[in-house]
Formats: sequence, C-alpha cells, structure tokens
Amino acid sequence: MSKKLTSRADDYSKWYNELVVKADMAENSAVRGCMVIKPYGFAIWEKIQAELDRMFKETGHQNAYFPLFVPKSLFEAEEKNAEGFAKECAIVTHYRLQNDPDNKGKLRVDPEAKLEEELVVRPTSEAIIWNTYKGWIQSYRDLPILVNQWANVVRWEMRTRLFLRTAEFLWQEGHTAHATETEAIKEAELMNNVYATFVENFMAIPVIKGIKTESERFAGAVETYCIEALMQDGKALQAGTSHFLGQNFAKAFDVKFANKDGKQDYVWATSWGVSTRLMGALIMTHSDDNGLVLPPSLAPNQVVIVPIYKSEEQLEAISKLVNIIMDELRSKGISVKYDDRNTLRPGAKFAQHELQGVPLRISIGPKDLENGTVELARRDTLTKEVISVDNLTSKVVALMEEIQNSLYSKALQFRDNHITEVDDFDTFKQVLESKGGFISAHWDGTEETELKIKELTKATIRCIPIDSKEEKGTCVYSGNPSKQRVLFAKAY
Amino acid sequence: MSKKLTSRADDYSKWYNELVVKADMAENSAVRGCMVIKPYGFAIWEKIQAELDRMFKETGHQNAYFPLFVPKSLFEAEEKNAEGFAKECAIVTHYRLQNDPDNKGKLRVDPEAKLEEELVVRPTSEAIIWNTYKGWIQSYRDLPILVNQWANVVRWEMRTRLFLRTAEFLWQEGHTAHATETEAIKEAELMNNVYATFVENFMAIPVIKGIKTESERFAGAVETYCIEALMQDGKALQAGTSHFLGQNFAKAFDVKFANKDGKQDYVWATSWGVSTRLMGALIMTHSDDNGLVLPPSLAPNQVVIVPIYKSEEQLEAISKLVNIIMDELRSKGISVKYDDRNTLRPGAKFAQHELQGVPLRISIGPKDLENGTVELARRDTLTKEVISVDNLTSKVVALMEEIQNSLYSKALQFRDNHITEVDDFDTFKQVLESKGGFISAHWDGTEETELKIKELTKATIRCIPIDSKEEKGTCVYSGNPSKQRVLFAKAY
Ligand SMILES: [Zn+2]
Ligand SMILES: [Zn+2]
Repeated sequence: MSKKLTSRADDYSKWYNELVVKADMAENSAVRGCMVIKPYGFAIWEKIQAELDRMFKETGHQNAYFPLFVPKSLFEAEEKNAEGFAKECAIVTHYRLQNDPDNKGKLRVDPEAKLEEELVVRPTSEAIIWNTYKGWIQSYRDLPILVNQWANVVRWEMRTRLFLRTAEFLWQEGHTAHATETEAIKEAELMNNVYATFVENFMAIPVIKGIKTESERFAGAVETYCIEALMQDGKALQAGTSHFLGQNFAKAFDVKFANKDGKQDYVWATSWGVSTRLMGALIMTHSDDNGLVLPPSLAPNQVVIVPIYKSEEQLEAISKLVNIIMDELRSKGISVKYDDRNTLRPGAKFAQHELQGVPLRISIGPKDLENGTVELARRDTLTKEVISVDNLTSKVVALMEEIQNSLYSKALQFRDNHITEVDDFDTFKQVLESKGGFISAHWDGTEETELKIKELTKATIRCIPIDSKEEKGTCVYSGNPSKQRVLFAKAY
Repeated sequence: MSKKLTSRADDYSKWYNELVVKADMAENSAVRGCMVIKPYGFAIWEKIQAELDRMFKETGHQNAYFPLFVPKSLFEAEEKNAEGFAKECAIVTHYRLQNDPDNKGKLRVDPEAKLEEELVVRPTSEAIIWNTYKGWIQSYRDLPILVNQWANVVRWEMRTRLFLRTAEFLWQEGHTAHATETEAIKEAELMNNVYATFVENFMAIPVIKGIKTESERFAGAVETYCIEALMQDGKALQAGTSHFLGQNFAKAFDVKFANKDGKQDYVWATSWGVSTRLMGALIMTHSDDNGLVLPPSLAPNQVVIVPIYKSEEQLEAISKLVNIIMDELRSKGISVKYDDRNTLRPGAKFAQHELQGVPLRISIGPKDLENGTVELARRDTLTKEVISVDNLTSKVVALMEEIQNSLYSKALQFRDNHITEVDDFDTFKQVLESKGGFISAHWDGTEETELKIKELTKATIRCIPIDSKEEKGTCVYSGNPSKQRVLFAKAY
C-alpha cells in the first residue's frame, strides 16, 4: 500500500479523488471526462443494481432496451428537453474511417461516409422511447406501460469528477405511460419513495424527499420529485429524481390513446432515474481519513479473515479453523474472504482492507488458536475486541445489522445537526460559509429571488420538502410574504 | 392476436422477422439498424445474462466498466484490429448542438464544438482496455487480470436483422491478461468451453467447438476459438468466440511486466464474447410455425394458467384452486403466471402463450373442478393431456426437465443429420443447395481455396473442429493433399 490519504480537513476534494483511486473503485480514462469503473467499484455498483432491480420488479416494472442513438429530428421534438440537453451532447456525424493518405498507418474520418441525419448519443431517452411508445399504444388497454432500462448515457460536461459528474455514466431510467394524470403523479411519487427507501435502508444514507422549484426541474417535466442527501463537507447531493412529465412528450410525439369511452386523449408520462452518482454519495457519507467505509449491505466482502503466522504449520492450523468459520458464516448469508496471500504482511493487508472499507476484519494468530479466540476489528468505529471463537458466528451476524444501523444513525445525526433554520440574509450567508449543510428559510416563490441568492451565495434551493408544514413568514432575501420554508444548500 | 405467422416452408426469413415482432421480443427503431428489445425479449436476455455471469464469476472473473468511446489514436494503435473495424464505425466529431438560425425550432451541430480528436463508438474494447491495463500492470504479481464487461457496442453494418445483425447490440466482452502464453491459451480454451456448456445445457442448442481459419479470425487475434450452431434452415450460426490475442495488444499499447526473474516481457492476452445474437440462435433452433418455443431454463414464465369460466362464481372457485397450485409450483422454483385477464377469451390467450413459447400451459374449467383434474398442454410437442390435480406439481417438475432435454435431443438429431461428409466438389455444391447444413470435407489449408469455394458457393469454413481426427485425404476443391476434414456451411 502507498502512503496515507490526504485528510478530509486538509482538502476534502483531494481526499475524495485519492480515496476513489486508491480504494480501486474507479479512475480517469484516456477519454476526456469518462471513467473506468474498476472491479471493486463495479462490485458495489452491482449490489446497488441488484437491489434496485428487485424493487422495480416488485412494483410491477419490466426491463427493456432502447437505442443508444437519438436522431436529431426526434431529439429536438420536445423543445424544452432538447434545449436542456443540446449544449452537452456527443454527436455522431460519420460512420466510417479510412486510411489517411497523408499519414501512413493512421486513419481519418471518411468524408464520404457522412450521415444524412446526425445522431445524438442519448443524454436521456425520453425522445427515443416516446417515439417508440407511439407504436405500442392505441387504447387504454395498452396502458399503463411500466418500463425501466439499465444503460449508459453521455452528457458532455466540462468539469468532471469520478462518479459525481462524468461525461459517460451508468444509470437506470424508468419511463412509464398512463391513462390518467392522477395515475402518473402517483407513479412519480411511488418511485421517489422507492428511491428514498433504497438509499436509506440499503445505502444507510438519510434523505429528504421533496419537489424541485421550476428552475431546478428536469427539462420537459411538469414536476420533479427528488431525494436530497447531505455530504460530510456540508454540501447537498441529489441522489435520485422522479419526474411527472404531464402530456409534454405525448404531445411532442403525438401519442394518443382511446379511453374507455372511445375518446382520444394524450398519454400521461413519468420518468425517473438514479446513476453511478450514488457511488459518490456512498463514499462522501460514510468514509473517513483511513478510506472507504461500507455498509454491510453494499460490501462485496462483508468480512475478511487475515491469518497471522510465522511457520507453515501455523498457517495450516489457522487455515483449518478458517475453513470451518467461513462455512458457518456463509451458511448465514455472510460474504467472507480469506486473505491468505503470502506476498503481503498482515499490516499491509489490514491497511488495504481498511482503505477498501471491509466492514469487519477477523484476524487469527497462534495465540488465538491456543486460547480459542479471534480478534474482531470494526471498520466503522475502528474498534477491536478479542472474542471466543464459539460465539463468532452469532456475533458477526449481529454486528452486520448493528454496523448498518449505526452508519445510518450517525449520518442521520450529522444531517439533522446540519439543517439550520435561518430568518435573515446575513445569518444565511454566515451559516452557509461557516457551518454549511441545509438552510431552512422562507422564500417568496419567485425565480428572481432564487437566482439572486444563487448568484450571491452559490446556494440553490435543493427542494421544497414534501413533509414541510405550512408556516407564514417573510422571504429571507426579499422580505416578501412566504407560506413555507424551503431547503437551500450548496450542492454537488 | 393477429393472423398466423408466415410458415417456415413458405419464407424462412419472413417467418423469423414476424415471429420476433409478434412474440413481442424486439422491433426495429427509428435509428437505422438499431433495435428496441421489448420487455418479453429482454426478460429472456436477462436469464442468459444471469447464468453466464454466474459462470464467469465461478471461473474467477470480475466485472468492470470501460468507456463507450475510443479516441481515434488508440483505435488505430493495433493495426489489424483497426483495419477490421474501421469500415463500420460510428464516429463522434462534435459535442454540442445549437439553435439553427435558418430553421426556427430546429437544432444544428455547432461548428465551433468540433472535437480535437474524433471518438469512435466502441465496436469492441480491446484498444481502450489495453490502454487502461498499461497502468494496472507492473509485475507478475499484478497478473492474471480476469475482467468481463457487459456493454453495448456499435458496428455500422449495412444489412441488419433483429438480434442477428444490428448496428448496436448488447454483449459481454471478457478481456484477460496473463504472464505466460500457455496460461492465456488455457484461458481462451476455458471460456470457449464455458460458452459451449452454457449454450448446450441452458439454451438446449448443440454446438461444435472449433478453431477459425486465418481469414475468419477476429481482427488482431492469433487464434480464434468458436462454437458453431446449426439453424433449422440449414445455415450455421457462430454462437460465441474466444480469442487468444498473443502479445499483439500488449505490443501495440506497450504493456510489459517484470517476471519472477525481474526481466521485462510483454503481457499475453485473451478476449471472448457472446451477444444478443444468441437470441436469434434460440429462436431459429427451437421455434415452429406457431411461434416461439422456449426451453424452460430461459422462459420468463415456465407455466401459464388459464381459467375457463362463464360466471363470476366459476372464476372465483377456479382462482382459489389456482392460488394453491401456484404456491406449490413456486415452492419448487417454477415460475408461473395466472392469466386471468377479462379482456381476452381463452382461445386468444392460448394463441398468445403459444406464440410467446411458454413451455407449459395449464387450463382449468368448471368440469375440471368437479373431476379434480386440469388440462396440461406442452408447447414443444403441442400435445395435451388431462391429469389429476393431485399429481400436478410433481408432473410439472418432471416435465420441465423433460422438455429441456427433449428440445436438446431434437436439435442434436437435426444437427447430426445435417453434417454430411463429402469428397468431391459437385456433391459439395449439390448437398449445400439441396440439404444444407454442415459439409465435412477435406481442404488443402490455403486461403486461396477457401476464398474460391466461398465465391463459388457462398459457403465458408465455419471451423476446424477441435475433436476432429487426423485423416489423410485430398482437398474437395483443389485435389491437393489434406490431413483433416473441416466444416463448411452457409452462415448467418
Ligand atoms: Zn459541521
Ligand atoms: Zn434437412
């Protein structure tokens, strides 16, 4: 293992980048803004995928797959959506390379292989999907359509960061079609709730459910529901969004259906997505200066066992015990890895597993064999204890749940300590700079004020919380009347 | 349901296209050559993915994800690989659209947003991956690297067909790095065997394992292993390939490692892949003029239950029994769907499930309730029988295995009946035209003869079978000496 990570206090952003690379999660690639997700990082993403996929299917959704490319004429059909994404698109214009006559051994774009119509690499798939749905929907009997797709998308962002903002990223995008407005709104809310449940229970990250203001809405949506999380540095991170799209896409692509009375109406739509950004939220919620901290539900290896030995006989005796322990743990559904590499010393192994966030480390040496004990080390609390090997399995099972819950509680406490009610703009600015986190403040409901506050402080309205109570007040910036508080924060 | 399918005898190719669309598996999209994989087709692909993924992990592989785009300079680094794919690439040249000043409401490519270096949408990922591996490999301790990726790739084919040949398709591509030639060859062979086992046991499609001739090899490979299947129309289909890449990519990307003696050497490589093409093989191996026939291991629903009723009370009584049946079947790991839609008559449901290849249909009417019976209908044999409801679960469990085996046997018999040993060129041409299938014939080993035969007959050498015995003979075309037979066929 190489030298220690930069500490969070020294440089949070550097700490994050180093952690991602040193924990073997991801790295930058030769393609500007695109990342390579390494096996360890991808194994965590696979756990996220599997659980979400299960939850989508449980709520009646099916997977499908739509083309990577969107012809320009379809892309521009829904005007607001097109406007929102046009500035950051990768565009395919040609379909062939040829030998470069001026440059032996090199290739160049064949000028004769120009596409008649340019293709946009999907930044999101509403356009291509609604153009497809047009052929699937004639009557109310064809509704609802409840479809999800796991896919890569491309948004040509200028400033990129591993997992948080990359030119290409992996995500899922649900696209549903409904006969009524009520049903579509219910679906958008349901999926925002599915996301909240998943992120809280599975990723141990507390979130606030809310709706976006008009200026922060998805391009083409009537309403955007979201879940907002808070990172350790006091910045917010939008962890998932679910959009009620009204009839905007149905109108843009002329998707009508015959209702029960035989009358033609436009179809109602939703879309919803989470992405590899969740990996960034995971890292920045739980990790510490020693590296990644993983909740057991997301850990590729929940337990690692390291043997401490001098002689081959000692290793053999330890390995014999380890095999029994592993069988028992696996029978309880716990994933466990035996790290018996002979190329690294125990200290180096400890450091690596700590860096990679393995929730529980068991080490066993000759003394332990004599005493019938093992040493347990918790990654989250960095505490160690020696316990009898007889109690090991039940102890580990209990610890898995305890660690999962403890990570959530810790994050919840931090988050709740970082929601500050503020009633004047000086305090607003001061809290934002000194303490960070969410600021709960009155807002007059105008885009003008929202943009002014953003310009002056870089804070945006993260959401209007769904469970917020009505409360008369005056806008923290304009002094105009307001009927509820909203949450401001600087955000990723 | 709409009218019947075109029969295979009338027009095999039309039958195939109609089946794919009417069984709701896939359809053409608005993007030339790209398909939409519909939920029913995608559910089958998910079963293929899940089982292969399990087999890859069992053989020590991990998943990762590499960028969609390959910068042109990396793409052209391995010359043969570049040459092989340059003519069918989608190329990104710009990263922004802007409002078209001449065309209100329309967008155009922003001429100022031209990329400095064009990006190729990956047709395969050796280049971007070996450029990445360069950073991962210093010493023999970093080897082997055993990585797989599930991804979309794009090859700008001119003639496309749903699943069989599409501009964008889904696949997995394994890319491994090894310290020795022997180990890399072993890996390439292992993965070809994994594919063979999967396709035979899980998809019930018999395959012949072989190696490709030089002209049919993957661009950049030293040796290409393959599995070849035979479709019902007598044409062969390459179902999977595994390549020993030698040190070609290591040399192109300068990937060296220090071996145990501290000496620098280039790394040895393999790559291997199967794609959504397997869906085409599945369809064309088992299906009939009534539609899709699915082996139970790949069926999204293995059993469907259709109630036959006139009154609401009858439906209620049937549904009560069905719930008990479903619980029992599910407890045995069988997937079952109750089709109680009130918008379709039983006959229409039967036709749909037949078209979609559900292996077993159970229907229950009022008479059955009285008699304690149900009617079972097998999709593969189109046979029906009435059995006691008491024996249902054990019967269904047994039938799942029987159907799976029977489909394999039937396909194997057909395949074996369509391997014809031929010793002169007139017979070669005659068998190819009248009977089709594989022709086992002597070949003099030259590319000249191979290409001449292809030109004259459209048949190519599908493979040199791995288990073929040495046998002295004379080339079926040139009369020159040959030491073994190879397999010729027309192919998809
Ligand atoms: Zn604080
Ligand atoms: Zn025949």
